[in-house]
Amino acid sequence: MASLKLNDIPPDIVIGRLPLYLRALTRLKQEGNDVTSSHELGRHLGISSAQIRKDLSHFGGFGKQGTGYQIEYLVAKLEQVLQVDREWLVIVVGAGNLGSAIAHYRGFADRGFRIAWLVDASAEKIGQKVGDLSVHPISDMQTIIRQNGVKVAMLAVPAEHAQSVADQLIDAGIRAILNYAPITIKVPDNVKVQYIDPVVHLQTMTYFLRSED
Amino acid sequence: MASLKLNDIPPDIVIGRLPLYLRALTRLKQEGNDVTSSHELGRHLGISSAQIRKDLSHFGGFGKQGTGYQIEYLVAKLEQVLQVDREWLVIVVGAGNLGSAIAHYRGFADRGFRIAWLVDASAEKIGQKVGDLSVHPISDMQTIIRQNGVKVAMLAVPAEHAQSVADQLIDAGIRAILNYAPITIKVPDNVKVQYIDPVVHLQTMTYFLRSED
Repeated sequence: MASLKLNDIPPDIVIGRLPLYLRALTRLKQEGNDVTSSHELGRHLGISSAQIRKDLSHFGGFGKQGTGYQIEYLVAKLEQVLQVDREWLVIVVGAGNLGSAIAHYRGFADRGFRIAWLVDASAEKIGQKVGDLSVHPISDMQTIIRQNGVKVAMLAVPAEHAQSVADQLIDAGIRAILNYAPITIKVPDNVKVQYIDPVVHLQTMTYFLRSED
Repeated sequence: MASLKLNDIPPDIVIGRLPLYLRALTRLKQEGNDVTSSHELGRHLGISSAQIRKDLSHFGGFGKQGTGYQIEYLVAKLEQVLQVDREWLVIVVGAGNLGSAIAHYRGFADRGFRIAWLVDASAEKIGQKVGDLSVHPISDMQTIIRQNGVKVAMLAVPAEHAQSVADQLIDAGIRAILNYAPITIKVPDNVKVQYIDPVVHLQTMTYFLRSED
């Protein structure tokens, strides 16, 4: 709550870029590369090489001037920094179209997360199979979270229920919420929230559509 | 393709923050505020007030020192800069769980976009109703795009089809693709791509879970 000092680099901004670096590095590794540079990474990501070097310098000396980054080493270090060198079990709230799509999403593998539970408030959905998961009743949600020490949740419920479900998640011990509902939720200082908002991405692109070919 | 000069501010980074400013400002307006400051915006967004002032200064003088920003004026200017002071018609490819969720998403209203077409390759989905839309066959995709001058597409197909569908979209005239498939697609320089990747958001949050309460 203290006001920002001018020389503060808000760590959230730097942290928010690390997963992008990790994804680009993983891709370079899969393509058979062993070494990369801040310039190459920058080209992939549309971020300046100076920014990348500065961001990474917060977390130790990853590369030597002129020799580039060892990709495998940097991937391992970033996974460690982001704490995804382990597997977080995730609970998904809402088994509608979106929750089902999340449960089927193949982008989670080897990136630190496993969708382990899917819960819904609708009686007709309870017990249904979504991929490998069975839908649990939302009345079991807090018990699941408490018994398994779950810290991460994805919220795929209608906007009007997002705040009350978030309150229950946090009360049971959730500390990170990825919210798909188009509504801002209020959380205590010790809880992180991120939003999936397709419009933000679309608006970023329409800016560039001005010079029509 | 030219290498970045040190003094270049990559515009993509700044542009990428404008939709976040627009969303926060719209929220402040809805809550009944007429005026805000870079400090207040910064607190909402976790971005330094200096960064916000610098970003906005690229697009003209929006606020006077000490008097803050007129929210309604700044919203209108940002909508103009991002070119969302009009309505872009969007085609969604893939009418599975994800495509259906997108078609039902209520976050598009008054933000510059309208989902106008939903297409799918599966014969059994053709003609089905998803919200207000009927599913069209993917064989009509390029005709729809060409006849209506569509520039914006959302890609909600399985990863293995993402590249070939993207190629067809671009061939027909699409210039901005929001890709939900967990795969990087290759596009020409005059086409923009953004990715919805929930793992990037989750990884940003797990960093902060280190100091367990």
